[in-house]
Amino acid sequence: MDKIPKWFIGCDAMYEQSDTVLFGAPFDSTASFRPGSRFAPRHMREDSCGLETYSPYQDRDLENTSIFDAGDLELCIGDTRTALAQIEGFVSQLLHEKKRPVMLGGEHLVSLGAIRAMSKQYHDLHIIHFDAHADLRDSYLGTELSHATVIRRVWDILGDGRIYQFGIRSGDRGEFFWAENRVHTQKFNFNGLEDTVNALRGKPIYFTLDLDVLDPSCFPGTGTPEAGGVSFSELLDAVLLLKPLNIVGFDMVELSPPLDHSGVSTATACKLLRELLLLGSV
Amino acid sequence: MDKIPKWFIGCDAMYEQSDTVLFGAPFDSTASFRPGSRFAPRHMREDSCGLETYSPYQDRDLENTSIFDAGDLELCIGDTRTALAQIEGFVSQLLHEKKRPVMLGGEHLVSLGAIRAMSKQYHDLHIIHFDAHADLRDSYLGTELSHATVIRRVWDILGDGRIYQFGIRSGDRGEFFWAENRVHTQKFNFNGLEDTVNALRGKPIYFTLDLDVLDPSCFPGTGTPEAGGVSFSELLDAVLLLKPLNIVGFDMVELSPPLDHSGVSTATACKLLRELLLLGSV
Amino acid sequence: MDKIPKWFIGCDAMYEQSDTVLFGAPFDSTASFRPGSRFAPRHMREDSCGLETYSPYQDRDLENTSIFDAGDLELCIGDTRTALAQIEGFVSQLLHEKKRPVMLGGEHLVSLGAIRAMSKQYHDLHIIHFDAHADLRDSYLGTELSHATVIRRVWDILGDGRIYQFGIRSGDRGEFFWAENRVHTQKFNFNGLEDTVNALRGKPIYFTLDLDVLDPSCFPGTGTPEAGGVSFSELLDAVLLLKPLNIVGFDMVELSPPLDHSGVSTATACKLLRELLLLGSV
Amino acid sequence: MDKIPKWFIGCDAMYEQSDTVLFGAPFDSTASFRPGSRFAPRHMREDSCGLETYSPYQDRDLENTSIFDAGDLELCIGDTRTALAQIEGFVSQLLHEKKRPVMLGGEHLVSLGAIRAMSKQYHDLHIIHFDAHADLRDSYLGTELSHATVIRRVWDILGDGRIYQFGIRSGDRGEFFWAENRVHTQKFNFNGLEDTVNALRGKPIYFTLDLDVLDPSCFPGTGTPEAGGVSFSELLDAVLLLKPLNIVGFDMVELSPPLDHSGVSTATACKLLRELLLLGSV
Amino acid sequence: MDKIPKWFIGCDAMYEQSDTVLFGAPFDSTASFRPGSRFAPRHMREDSCGLETYSPYQDRDLENTSIFDAGDLELCIGDTRTALAQIEGFVSQLLHEKKRPVMLGGEHLVSLGAIRAMSKQYHDLHIIHFDAHADLRDSYLGTELSHATVIRRVWDILGDGRIYQFGIRSGDRGEFFWAENRVHTQKFNFNGLEDTVNALRGKPIYFTLDLDVLDPSCFPGTGTPEAGGVSFSELLDAVLLLKPLNIVGFDMVELSPPLDHSGVSTATACKLLRELLLLGSV
Amino acid sequence: MDKIPKWFIGCDAMYEQSDTVLFGAPFDSTASFRPGSRFAPRHMREDSCGLETYSPYQDRDLENTSIFDAGDLELCIGDTRTALAQIEGFVSQLLHEKKRPVMLGGEHLVSLGAIRAMSKQYHDLHIIHFDAHADLRDSYLGTELSHATVIRRVWDILGDGRIYQFGIRSGDRGEFFWAENRVHTQKFNFNGLEDTVNALRGKPIYFTLDLDVLDPSCFPGTGTPEAGGVSFSELLDAVLLLKPLNIVGFDMVELSPPLDHSGVSTATACKLLRELLLLGSV
Repeated sequence: MDKIPKWFIGCDAMYEQSDTVLFGAPFDSTASFRPGSRFAPRHMREDSCGLETYSPYQDRDLENTSIFDAGDLELCIGDTRTALAQIEGFVSQLLHEKKRPVMLGGEHLVSLGAIRAMSKQYHDLHIIHFDAHADLRDSYLGTELSHATVIRRVWDILGDGRIYQFGIRSGDRGEFFWAENRVHTQKFNFNGLEDTVNALRGKPIYFTLDLDVLDPSCFPGTGTPEAGGVSFSELLDAVLLLKPLNIVGFDMVELSPPLDHSGVSTATACKLLRELLLLGSV
Repeated sequence: MDKIPKWFIGCDAMYEQSDTVLFGAPFDSTASFRPGSRFAPRHMREDSCGLETYSPYQDRDLENTSIFDAGDLELCIGDTRTALAQIEGFVSQLLHEKKRPVMLGGEHLVSLGAIRAMSKQYHDLHIIHFDAHADLRDSYLGTELSHATVIRRVWDILGDGRIYQFGIRSGDRGEFFWAENRVHTQKFNFNGLEDTVNALRGKPIYFTLDLDVLDPSCFPGTGTPEAGGVSFSELLDAVLLLKPLNIVGFDMVELSPPLDHSGVSTATACKLLRELLLLGSV
Repeated sequence: MDKIPKWFIGCDAMYEQSDTVLFGAPFDSTASFRPGSRFAPRHMREDSCGLETYSPYQDRDLENTSIFDAGDLELCIGDTRTALAQIEGFVSQLLHEKKRPVMLGGEHLVSLGAIRAMSKQYHDLHIIHFDAHADLRDSYLGTELSHATVIRRVWDILGDGRIYQFGIRSGDRGEFFWAENRVHTQKFNFNGLEDTVNALRGKPIYFTLDLDVLDPSCFPGTGTPEAGGVSFSELLDAVLLLKPLNIVGFDMVELSPPLDHSGVSTATACKLLRELLLLGSV
Repeated sequence: MDKIPKWFIGCDAMYEQSDTVLFGAPFDSTASFRPGSRFAPRHMREDSCGLETYSPYQDRDLENTSIFDAGDLELCIGDTRTALAQIEGFVSQLLHEKKRPVMLGGEHLVSLGAIRAMSKQYHDLHIIHFDAHADLRDSYLGTELSHATVIRRVWDILGDGRIYQFGIRSGDRGEFFWAENRVHTQKFNFNGLEDTVNALRGKPIYFTLDLDVLDPSCFPGTGTPEAGGVSFSELLDAVLLLKPLNIVGFDMVELSPPLDHSGVSTATACKLLRELLLLGSV
Repeated sequence: MDKIPKWFIGCDAMYEQSDTVLFGAPFDSTASFRPGSRFAPRHMREDSCGLETYSPYQDRDLENTSIFDAGDLELCIGDTRTALAQIEGFVSQLLHEKKRPVMLGGEHLVSLGAIRAMSKQYHDLHIIHFDAHADLRDSYLGTELSHATVIRRVWDILGDGRIYQFGIRSGDRGEFFWAENRVHTQKFNFNGLEDTVNALRGKPIYFTLDLDVLDPSCFPGTGTPEAGGVSFSELLDAVLLLKPLNIVGFDMVELSPPLDHSGVSTATACKLLRELLLLGSV
Repeated sequence: MDKIPKWFIGCDAMYEQSDTVLFGAPFDSTASFRPGSRFAPRHMREDSCGLETYSPYQDRDLENTSIFDAGDLELCIGDTRTALAQIEGFVSQLLHEKKRPVMLGGEHLVSLGAIRAMSKQYHDLHIIHFDAHADLRDSYLGTELSHATVIRRVWDILGDGRIYQFGIRSGDRGEFFWAENRVHTQKFNFNGLEDTVNALRGKPIYFTLDLDVLDPSCFPGTGTPEAGGVSFSELLDAVLLLKPLNIVGFDMVELSPPLDHSGVSTATACKLLRELLLLGSV
């Protein structure tokens, strides 16, 4: 007699046989407004049973991949530095064992833990970042480690010219000013993404997808909704554009299931994860 | 002193005077993931008071139609075969009395009961099917009678070349493969609908509208939301395209009001029902 | 030690220094279907902390404006005439003290109180009205003072040729018929808005924004959702088109926060308010 | 084929054969805090299908009664005086036709409409009032017609010594002071109810049950919850104590279904209504 | 690095070492009113992390037990007979392997599957049944297999004098009449439970706990709430009274998590499960 | 024209004239299970308009007190040590200016910040602690600063014999064992509270009220609900017993409004706050 599976659909490889490892980083302690993203990976696993493993967009199937779902990390709630170190340690271990990490947040700050580990392994690491918010503040509400500062902290590690942002439609005046000549910031949409992809071919890419880049109409379940975002189809097209790249790891962050009782946001995140996991398959 | 009406707005003809009979089929027993569509017809009736009877799209008014709202069937919950037989019996009776049936689900499986009756009456019956999901599996979770197999069961009755699907964006690999040369399956959108309408003029058409063909942004209240669907305007345009057809019956299924506290999904279903009911009027 | 602010972000001028005064009119007593808009101004203030004061659309910042947030009026719930008189009195006082009024509803009927005061001050007042509903009934459910009659009551004051409606997609047949030659009614969209703006340059304009002009996909939190509306981007573009006008006052109405647990509707209203407040700044 | 019933369970007598008439008064316009009681009668009818018609407490069955459910009055929302006149008119008509009125609110103010009619028919009318709140203010938020003044308005009609309150645990200092020697006010519980019943035997009694007399633990679905109330069993015992009285009419008010998603409050109201309706049967 | 556990707290024994096996029966297809109990076992596992393994009531700890959590059965949704056969088969297998079954519903009908298996193994099986509803109808809504008939079906197997009901406060007149001399039915409370326990010492007992025996104030998350139930403390005391019995299996049914957003009902079920699992430990 | 007040009802004294200062500590970063208590003070202020300032229990009125509501501290979210230091600093300042602090959490850990300040001012400080949970762990999920360790940290400061716990019904075995001879722990109820009050007369007392000591039936809005708690009346009686004590400060913690849509938990907390604020008045 079968049991309801405990992993994201189609991600049932054993660790040893896998090339990609999926894991959750259920951390939302710096969420200043409305927490809840800590529940995202658990809900995505559960609700993935409403999704097919087959993609009619790519004509590929998760059944033909080798992905291990490691479950959720047990992160130290309330102690940001420790939690980031835990994430960094786990990703470093995966890289050491030749696994490609795929992280499900949690708030956006979790990306910093992963990128710290990635940047040590890949010295020419570049970042592609889809988001509604620039996340380039130097500090926020008195701390330098926040969902609102995370890409600034990534810049601290990688420096100028390594970060490419798309879809940004919110920030303070200073963030936009600071970004000039340091970070490639495409406001509102994905214009220029194809050029970016062409320019970055062959380089190691970490892709960080803050799901609030989507318009709140199709993704209401997020802590800081910002009207005027891209549609699901626009985002899907943009994701498929990334196919030629060497994506050495990626994350999806800022899904907050308690804010969307309909489950649509979780279902949408699941579908995007499927498409992203299939990007690298054959 | 007036009372709050007990029927869908504008559908207050008496049975004897009516040409069309509206009824609910509040059945969702095979919903594997999130039940709730059983509540759809009741909520549609109640919330229809927020809608006008007049359509500025068609410049027609439900006040000028002759529709009887028969209320909800009392279906045997938990016994699929009996429930389908109850629906088939009721539709047969309506056809016998020269009434055009309009059914409000419930889950998509209820269409099978209606189509069984319709196919006996109309030997050249064709189906137009708008949906996110192909619903062409041969069995699902161990049963051949499921919301995920309903169109396959319809094919069992009607055979090749009689079913036209539009908007399909989810299915397993086998469903899409099986459909080739058997079922007309238009993926993602309504491309080709006009040609289909032209080809089917004069034939008896049963139209089954699984409301999850809509993008979840405009229709979150459904059990299996699937991102990347059509907009309300696209669906409305497609529905208006059907005007030249001889629609001998239709249904709307898979609205699940408990999943959308805002009531938007129910209001949207009500508006689509109004437009569909007005299609055939003069 | 700072406190969480009690005003809409960036609206922290003192009354004496302000040129614009923001206030709430928490009244929804005539809501026939689903009340809740009385909570809108309070929720907008609270949730405005999730928004930036800086607009990347206009490259302007609320930090550079002089707006006083007067809080909510304490209106007589259940007595429509008294409540309208209270609003009229407050707006008259603001006009007397050379402040531009910006009102947050509440249901649409509150606009009548404001426009009564505005029309006494500005004898050539014109109205621009964005809405899903025509609101031109002469009476509704037995009363002449209702959210469904409000623009008809405005016409009683202003007469023919002074009201310009856009986005209207719901009404009874009589409303559309009556409006001909009396009210400029653009159905479904903003076509012709630019011409209207050109024609009205220099005249005093009161702008009333019923937020349900938005499609329910991006604005589910409203009492009478009507599918087929404009997108956020379309509305934002339309609002920015108003820039050349002399807007002597405006309101935003029909946000009902309890109907949208995700908070997206409130966040969207906040963003639109920011853009409207920045329209007149330099 | 059966339909889902449109009346409260067991109340399916025809008007002509009935001795008692049940009706809804869906009015909540003076609710200052959280509206929603307008939905109570509709929800009670729908959810009554989860209740049995048989009471094991009284060993009686609604099947053996003659009660007609007249549905909901269509009251003028937003115009308190008109709405009260509508209620008074309907109750007068029932009394004229020798029907006992049973009214489902709505907010507590609806009782005033009914009692106005009752007091004209029964010149020695006495009131038994169960409530958390004294409702004895002379005016509230600038109006004399409010849920917070309703019993004071009843006193205006009936005068001293005709009103017996039980369970009162909230009021301002002035209300308690005013009540002395005018109204019998039992704080917190039902102590003395048996004596009151003995004293009032034979007199015409109108019983008004504000359901917030219940502790919010068993009745969360009400607009002004007040901790420290009576348990369901205590209220049921108190209701059964009323059996010897000549109850010529009664109401149940202040159920607000939108505030209790679990449906428990509605189910509890239904059960109390069953017991009250059975009190007078044989 | 640890992962969030996938089992009910403290039930982490391996199957081979276990004496008790916990499993979920996520079936609610006959729920006529409000489905949702299918989600109960999953939610109980997740939310059990909010509970301690240690009971201060019994001074015992789940850490010292040997319980295996087998997860949820994958039952055939929509086909009642098949689902019951699946449950019966799984319980039979457990009994064959000398494991004590503990089943988490699901609706009450699932008990029938388990008791069919138990009754074959234990020829002198007796049932102790806590419930708000008698569940003794012979058929309900046209079917003999329903949550409202389950104990009648159990009686079909076991016959007179083997079923002891407590807390019953709802049923139709016929059920109470039928039960006389066939089933021991204690209305409203647990009076006489101690005598029953003394009479049944040494016999094999199956205990079926319909959680709606609790008052809805402490257990709102159930499909058919019935006011006037027992308090948590009264139920806990009653459960602890069962300690001397030879309980060869038990179940807990009718928790419906979607109906209680607060999570209190799930937490309460978890606590009762802990106490029941500890009853038999040393 | 009046505005809706921005403070807890009746707490409108100016700072200079006040003897007691109310403030919110909206911190819930260590909540391991379900965050939300950060919203408590804001919701309590808003919903306090549903409460009277007059207490019929004490025959006293908040109108006759001198309490200043300082609003919410802006705490560093995600950095526990800094947040505690902020609270300690604010309380120290209040004590320096001879104000009695009353803190609204937030999670229970905020009490530590306040007690650190109190213990420096009052060298013989004693703690009275009402709670469902012992909160005596030495560390929890890898940190020593957690809602589950807060009273242990208080013990670190105060040492043996200074802490009196009541109502405790949850903890691990080790906490109960450790507490013997160090902390007075009354399990389940308030037995012995009167003796404790007599023993502590004249000493400086800090009272910390974790609202989850209440049964979840009357207080569902809390992150870790634990069945079997005290009723509102039992808690109110216990609070009134504290009257003879010299309470130099107190807090109320662990209300989580998002978990109780009915608002009952917030209303209950407001009522308890009123009674506590009135304890010391004359």
